[in-house]
Amino acid sequence: MNNDTHRQIVLARRPNGLTVAEDFELRESAVAAPGNGEVLTRTIYFTLDPYMRGMMDDTESYSDPVPLGGVIVGSTVGEVIESRHNGFKPGDIVETYGGWQSHVTAPGEMLRPIDVSLAPVSTALGVLGMPGLTAYHGLLKVGEPKAGETVFVSAASGAVGATVGQIARIKGCRVAGCAGSDEKVAYCLDECGFDACFNYKTCGDLSEAIRAACPNGVDVNFENVGGEIGRTVMMQLNEQARMAVCGTISNYNSTEPDMVADNLWWYIVRRIKVQGLLVTDFAEDDERARAELAGWIREGAMTYRETIVDGLENAPGAFNRLFEGSNFGKLIVRVGDDPTGS
Amino acid sequence: MNNDTHRQIVLARRPNGLTVAEDFELRESAVAAPGNGEVLTRTIYFTLDPYMRGMMDDTESYSDPVPLGGVIVGSTVGEVIESRHNGFKPGDIVETYGGWQSHVTAPGEMLRPIDVSLAPVSTALGVLGMPGLTAYHGLLKVGEPKAGETVFVSAASGAVGATVGQIARIKGCRVAGCAGSDEKVAYCLDECGFDACFNYKTCGDLSEAIRAACPNGVDVNFENVGGEIGRTVMMQLNEQARMAVCGTISNYNSTEPDMVADNLWWYIVRRIKVQGLLVTDFAEDDERARAELAGWIREGAMTYRETIVDGLENAPGAFNRLFEGSNFGKLIVRVGDDPTGS
Repeated sequence: MNNDTHRQIVLARRPNGLTVAEDFELRESAVAAPGNGEVLTRTIYFTLDPYMRGMMDDTESYSDPVPLGGVIVGSTVGEVIESRHNGFKPGDIVETYGGWQSHVTAPGEMLRPIDVSLAPVSTALGVLGMPGLTAYHGLLKVGEPKAGETVFVSAASGAVGATVGQIARIKGCRVAGCAGSDEKVAYCLDECGFDACFNYKTCGDLSEAIRAACPNGVDVNFENVGGEIGRTVMMQLNEQARMAVCGTISNYNSTEPDMVADNLWWYIVRRIKVQGLLVTDFAEDDERARAELAGWIREGAMTYRETIVDGLENAPGAFNRLFEGSNFGKLIVRVGDDPTGS
Repeated sequence: MNNDTHRQIVLARRPNGLTVAEDFELRESAVAAPGNGEVLTRTIYFTLDPYMRGMMDDTESYSDPVPLGGVIVGSTVGEVIESRHNGFKPGDIVETYGGWQSHVTAPGEMLRPIDVSLAPVSTALGVLGMPGLTAYHGLLKVGEPKAGETVFVSAASGAVGATVGQIARIKGCRVAGCAGSDEKVAYCLDECGFDACFNYKTCGDLSEAIRAACPNGVDVNFENVGGEIGRTVMMQLNEQARMAVCGTISNYNSTEPDMVADNLWWYIVRRIKVQGLLVTDFAEDDERARAELAGWIREGAMTYRETIVDGLENAPGAFNRLFEGSNFGKLIVRVGDDPTGS
């Protein structure tokens, strides 16, 4: 019997634009014992990611929306505290899709053991988790960069963008990007090894800034932002260029459609390929990808940055940082002590 | 010395919307003798294709615009009447990129000999020429259809569309499309073997018509039209579907941009690939493709339709039929006698 309180943040109503406190509710109950084949974990970390905003709406998407009253979804890193599954024992550190809550009960099959020797376990939510794997699969399998080509990435200092840029550099590409503050730009240039990066808020003419960052045009655009940035990069794609559409964060909180000129003709002019991607479509290759990413980190070829917010109750307030540009690196909420001390 | 008159239709001014007679000028001169290495042909047939409209504008495209005073471009089938190139002799039937004129002088390297035993020589401008090769390369290499999948094609009775549909049928796909008249729809269903085809002008709700024609959704969309049709099909693409963007004829005569809601997000929802294509990018495989198309025609697995307009001077008037929907099948202008009698 576990006497802890099970704390959950649930969706109280569908947000309109940026989320506000009233869109969420903190619900408390007793922690339930796991059933047969299930594992109970206490959450150490959970992730805040832009895609969660879409799941709070009830419009069509690649997965069902969070129901009203349901826990906000997302990956979690937790410690097993009670197990009724042969594969897990108390003390194991695991990743699961538990969402914004202090405890997660799930069938053992839904848990992934984390190798704590690989890197700090929080990276299972970032560079060695969904964002890192998104960057890896999306860049290499959809973007198909070749050495010597120019890769452009928007939201370049973000959890996905910074990984994209560094993989592109490792693969011998010229790497350019844009970010929303001078500090972020400096991080991309000085720590991630971008060849060029600019602050899209202060650069003046966006077309000219992209042209200056990519004097030979863009062969691969890894699109995280959409909207004006995505469209402007698209107009500088070279013939036969590829555009991997990973996210369109600029409109995740939009309440009005963004009206633009139909540009299908441009696809013919430059013979571009524009393809949407979702990390789960490449899951069969996750293990190999994670090992390669971890190798690059160990060798010092790849760096990453995390911002940790303490306290489950602070998740709703922190969530908007993803859209306001005030977050830097992977945004993670710490709910409990990390026994690996990472 | 050749005493014939060389007649050419040149661009007199840049059109605004649909072309009018004043946009063109008929110019006459003496036929010049070919230079060293050159071949003089008299034109038998030349083609009228939608892409020519774009080349009359001076906006950026995949090739330079026709200059003011320049001959309108396009493929021609001609008979060699004088040759100063070892590879050709009078009487040879050849294809070249001569445009809207009665005679073409070109280096021998720019001519392709036509095998007159393969099919009527006019097909070098249609099913065995640019439109047929566009259908072949675009469907198979960009659309990547698999047996059992649903292929949708707009402008389905056109020179490209009807070939797309028939190749898709040969490859074991369910084939659906739309066209602009009941006669065209009947041709697709009865002669080309489409599984479903509808008249987009009389179908009522376009979404419902596509859904009825494609009950399992669309796995490959071969886009010839763009605009509302292209966008509506895009919303019925299945996950991992491919959209080959071949043309956007609905806006070739537009003078105002077509404003639409930005839909990059949809690319992620369905993980679609949208890719522009141009037949010349696949030229290295043309010979094999042409042989396969000719084989299908010989076996009776593929049919085609041509509309022949007589007289060089009638080309400008006939050209608008491509955009008004009053043309049916491959539109060709006959300038001189066809000695093969095809």
